[in-house]
Amino acid sequence: MKTGETDPSLEGVQDTDELVDRVERRKPYEPYLEAKLGLRNHWYAVFFGTELAEGEVRGEMVCGERIVFKRVSGVVYALEDRCPHRGAAFSARPECYSANTLTCWLHGFTFDVRDGALVEIVTEPGSKLVGKLRHKTYPVREISGVVFLFIGDMDPPPPVDQDIQPKFLKPGLVCHPVARNKSRANWRLAAENGYDAAHLYAHRNAGLFEQIDIPVPLSTFPSRKDHVTEVDGDTGPWGIVKFDDINIWHVEVDGTHVTAPNVNPEQSHDNWEIEVGLFMPCGLEVDYFPAPGVLHFEWYTPIDEDHHLYMIAHAALCEGSDEEAAFRKRCEEELAPLVWRDEGDPNVPVGDGPSWGFNNFDDWGREQMHHVYHYEDFWHRERLFRPDYIVLRWRMLVAARMRGVQTWGDWAPTRGWSPDGRGYNPNFGPKARRGEKP
Amino acid sequence: MKTGETDPSLEGVQDTDELVDRVERRKPYEPYLEAKLGLRNHWYAVFFGTELAEGEVRGEMVCGERIVFKRVSGVVYALEDRCPHRGAAFSARPECYSANTLTCWLHGFTFDVRDGALVEIVTEPGSKLVGKLRHKTYPVREISGVVFLFIGDMDPPPPVDQDIQPKFLKPGLVCHPVARNKSRANWRLAAENGYDAAHLYAHRNAGLFEQIDIPVPLSTFPSRKDHVTEVDGDTGPWGIVKFDDINIWHVEVDGTHVTAPNVNPEQSHDNWEIEVGLFMPCGLEVDYFPAPGVLHFEWYTPIDEDHHLYMIAHAALCEGSDEEAAFRKRCEEELAPLVWRDEGDPNVPVGDGPSWGFNNFDDWGREQMHHVYHYEDFWHRERLFRPDYIVLRWRMLVAARMRGVQTWGDWAPTRGWSPDGRGYNPNFGPKARRGEKP
Amino acid sequence: MKTGETDPSLEGVQDTDELVDRVERRKPYEPYLEAKLGLRNHWYAVFFGTELAEGEVRGEMVCGERIVFKRVSGVVYALEDRCPHRGAAFSARPECYSANTLTCWLHGFTFDVRDGALVEIVTEPGSKLVGKLRHKTYPVREISGVVFLFIGDMDPPPPVDQDIQPKFLKPGLVCHPVARNKSRANWRLAAENGYDAAHLYAHRNAGLFEQIDIPVPLSTFPSRKDHVTEVDGDTGPWGIVKFDDINIWHVEVDGTHVTAPNVNPEQSHDNWEIEVGLFMPCGLEVDYFPAPGVLHFEWYTPIDEDHHLYMIAHAALCEGSDEEAAFRKRCEEELAPLVWRDEGDPNVPVGDGPSWGFNNFDDWGREQMHHVYHYEDFWHRERLFRPDYIVLRWRMLVAARMRGVQTWGDWAPTRGWSPDGRGYNPNFGPKARRGEKP
Ligand code: FES
Ligand code: FES
Ligand code: FES
Ligand SMILES: [Fe+2]
Ligand SMILES: [Fe+2]
Ligand SMILES: [Fe+2]
Repeated sequence: MKTGETDPSLEGVQDTDELVDRVERRKPYEPYLEAKLGLRNHWYAVFFGTELAEGEVRGEMVCGERIVFKRVSGVVYALEDRCPHRGAAFSARPECYSANTLTCWLHGFTFDVRDGALVEIVTEPGSKLVGKLRHKTYPVREISGVVFLFIGDMDPPPPVDQDIQPKFLKPGLVCHPVARNKSRANWRLAAENGYDAAHLYAHRNAGLFEQIDIPVPLSTFPSRKDHVTEVDGDTGPWGIVKFDDINIWHVEVDGTHVTAPNVNPEQSHDNWEIEVGLFMPCGLEVDYFPAPGVLHFEWYTPIDEDHHLYMIAHAALCEGSDEEAAFRKRCEEELAPLVWRDEGDPNVPVGDGPSWGFNNFDDWGREQMHHVYHYEDFWHRERLFRPDYIVLRWRMLVAARMRGVQTWGDWAPTRGWSPDGRGYNPNFGPKARRGEKP
Repeated sequence: MKTGETDPSLEGVQDTDELVDRVERRKPYEPYLEAKLGLRNHWYAVFFGTELAEGEVRGEMVCGERIVFKRVSGVVYALEDRCPHRGAAFSARPECYSANTLTCWLHGFTFDVRDGALVEIVTEPGSKLVGKLRHKTYPVREISGVVFLFIGDMDPPPPVDQDIQPKFLKPGLVCHPVARNKSRANWRLAAENGYDAAHLYAHRNAGLFEQIDIPVPLSTFPSRKDHVTEVDGDTGPWGIVKFDDINIWHVEVDGTHVTAPNVNPEQSHDNWEIEVGLFMPCGLEVDYFPAPGVLHFEWYTPIDEDHHLYMIAHAALCEGSDEEAAFRKRCEEELAPLVWRDEGDPNVPVGDGPSWGFNNFDDWGREQMHHVYHYEDFWHRERLFRPDYIVLRWRMLVAARMRGVQTWGDWAPTRGWSPDGRGYNPNFGPKARRGEKP
Repeated sequence: MKTGETDPSLEGVQDTDELVDRVERRKPYEPYLEAKLGLRNHWYAVFFGTELAEGEVRGEMVCGERIVFKRVSGVVYALEDRCPHRGAAFSARPECYSANTLTCWLHGFTFDVRDGALVEIVTEPGSKLVGKLRHKTYPVREISGVVFLFIGDMDPPPPVDQDIQPKFLKPGLVCHPVARNKSRANWRLAAENGYDAAHLYAHRNAGLFEQIDIPVPLSTFPSRKDHVTEVDGDTGPWGIVKFDDINIWHVEVDGTHVTAPNVNPEQSHDNWEIEVGLFMPCGLEVDYFPAPGVLHFEWYTPIDEDHHLYMIAHAALCEGSDEEAAFRKRCEEELAPLVWRDEGDPNVPVGDGPSWGFNNFDDWGREQMHHVYHYEDFWHRERLFRPDYIVLRWRMLVAARMRGVQTWGDWAPTRGWSPDGRGYNPNFGPKARRGEKP
């Protein structure tokens, strides 16, 4: 299947308003609708390198698979987080007798994390299983401080840079972690929301606009198909980058005048231009945000059908370590608090006032949509409008280019995901059972 | 189908004990057993008018449908609480730019709440959808301070007074809100429990009996079929009103003497008489309770299969505003605390002692029955006795007269109903996610 | 079906390592794999006699059935905890008007707990149901302070001593309750874990080893089939008792030396010997633990598919009441705190340090395995090793000897089991609903 781009019935049509009409009814992106649990045979951002020190162990769930990570001599390795003996999660109580090994806390099966080989069993030294059993490993790459994991069965896996936003791969880029959160929505809703610039409207009261004086429109979208560039080579990365020519700065709603934040009525804002791209499997790049010269990256990595990892990073080109240190300091002190706060004031409505980060609101908003899409099949009932053209393009691109659809396979939805958003926590133990956050 | 009344095999039988035997085995009320989610094409009490001020917005779930309400120039309007664009709940973050409109917080679709017309889109002013898209609206009526909503597809809907307890419609009635709670039981168990006077026994230790000195029997029920009046005209209201002639004031249980509350052994209580009616779809009227001259109304509006809105109001005929003010003051200070307290002492067993309201206990009791009826099919396994005759009459009436059975249709059971009874809360946001009650 | 013992293909094979290989692939214990909810027609330990005083009432769920207990003249009786009238749980609000009776709090149906006969209805004295209705009763026996309940339909039931660990029946035995907890794992995982001595490894940092100076190996298992005695008469008790000849005191794991707790490198520990048996339906006996001369008993009684009652008792032969008193004092002050603490320090990792009891860790560990076995079918995917020979023997014994498999029958999985482990609590009421432990 090729992308919607080559669909003959769309040939010659340029107006995005008309394109939404024509595409919406036909929904030429069926595989996308099936990809609840993510795309198979792709690389996913999982955590920041700073979150795993030398010799440390951590567990994560990605696309429904439970995975344990360990860093050895600077390199991150990944194994299935389910002991082949009787299923215990290594990460629930990590044990390491040596740099290269990980031992199961229950009966002491000990694996070399580099290749999954069973190297010893503490409780039956010299077992005949030693040297025979090999535990499932996952390919891992660490790039600019972000750890990427390959979910799939291609061997060897495709190059990781085919699944990364192109600007993230720029030489000299310094990337600084901002936030990593487990959010309660399907990954596709998160990706679509991140890219959809019409939802800027919902951010208009964000505290960020009090801190930095850039005008941001109520909405912005492309009027013509050729304002969307499809990055669609044979090998990836695959994504779409849009150039918005319609910016909404003012609107009259039933007699009330609504104005975009930081708009100066004396000035024209027509030179406002932010380039935004969305890349497979689930990475956003924004050039620039939240301040000129700063690249903003997001990832919406599937955890399971109902949750995704929401990762945010800022980046800039830096020359030398002084510039890098200055950028990181600026991130910590100025930029990161604008987009994500771990504790806002719960008495202030979401997104209103300075208590919440700009992107905390997205986290909340995506959750609002999840129920209707996941359980009430809003995928087939939504009523799209012109700014959604880019959403349709994204869906068609993914449907055409994905290497596969992830399914539960030999995993099951993990119990313990709870309404408080605690999610899969392999360290979940007596502490958590007393009702405290682990 | 006509009601059980006309069943030839029951002809001539008058004794309620014998009738229970004959009816129980045949269960001639199959449609009632299917109406888990409520009756379709009926009017339901949803909230008190005082809970929605001019210009305010609130969300509720009724019979599984999520609905948003707004008051405009004194009139309450209702819309589907699910934006046709991408499914957001308007009520999650209400936005109003004008008196007549409601705007979706996510991309600014703006509707006239009076007719559901899309009047503008903030993020694409002048969209070609404007003037074409019409969002689903629901009929609403406000009577004596109670807001009624029509769930169904009859157009026009039947007159609201066909679905209201007759005494509630008396001219000159002043109705005062007492409580509105989301309870964890199917609506049918609530209605049956409210009407079933044999469960008075369970209330015998209620604090109410310490406050007011009316004797209340351990149980009370009709001995003869003709002590039950079926209000069963062609158009409704449809209900049953009973006249109990058997009152149990004393009983000997395996050697122990049990006496009804406030019974004076020197006196006869044979003149005790309270008229109780149960009306479709789910309204109770009690004349009198908790004190002579006071009408007591209850509604058990279905929320979903496992929950109902439990609304309680007191009413009296008043002449002039002074009498009304005095009655409302008496309700607040004397009557309401007898039947409902929001915070009882959790260390005192339910219903014993003065800490709990009379009807708090019903809330607890219905929840106790829900599991066995809903999951263990007690509808077909219960073993009824003589006082349950009125329950059987109610079931047969509903089965014969209901305008339809509600099903999930294009809605799904909403996630987020939690064991703490928080229920569907469209305002559920970051505050609630931190584990606090919103 | 006879036990795996008589399987011709295993004839003559003695080495446990080879036996695991041969048996693992064939899984000759299918009925065991079906027994999610427990074995039918067996006796189960439910609570300690001290937990039910004369005249008291309590509810429990066993093998998915909800049961209410009352003690009358010293004898414990049990009834279905679901009123035949309309399903209320008697135990939710126990009412007793006389020693022999239990009254339903909702409409006053009153039963003789000794035979289940309906003796009166408070709300309709002299009902024609009285003397006709008989409620389901369950056989109960109380032995050495443990209350056993029969789940099944054999009438009469088999003698209770066919379902009890033999050493528990020793004349002169004094048994002292240690702990009774509701744990979140299937009962079979608990039984296998309790018996599996290779998991001793996981306990190596337990606080117990700081308190008492007995060396305990990292692992211990039998090398030969004839080191396992199958107690397998015609009538029961049925169980297996093992004699471990391979004890692991030291092991080298990828260059690191791991030593068992309290091991003196100067001494031989070859005389270390603890006899452990596992008996149907779910009882462990350890001779000795946690100190020489003390018998340690455990039961893993199924609650539902996802939970079990984890009961622990210590016992010793005592002559006279002085010896008994001294033993009970020692249990309270010295022994019980070693194996179970109700509140450990949640900041200390499980099982490390002195804060947690030895068996608290098992409770945590079993929960870790439950998800993969129950939802990811690890029963068919586990990869066993030599020490698991005894687990396979247990499974084959149960499959061959069980009197039946329990199913949900006319019960349903009970809602209200919550992630905080609160479980089926018939006393669950307003207090619990406010988020506090009832
Ligand atoms: S479960 Fe991991 S070693 Fe046994
Ligand atoms: S979801 Fe309501 S406007 Fe987009
Ligand atoms: S439910 Fe027990 S007496 Fe009615
Ligand atoms: Fe956003
Ligand atoms: Fe009541
Ligand atoms: Fe253990």
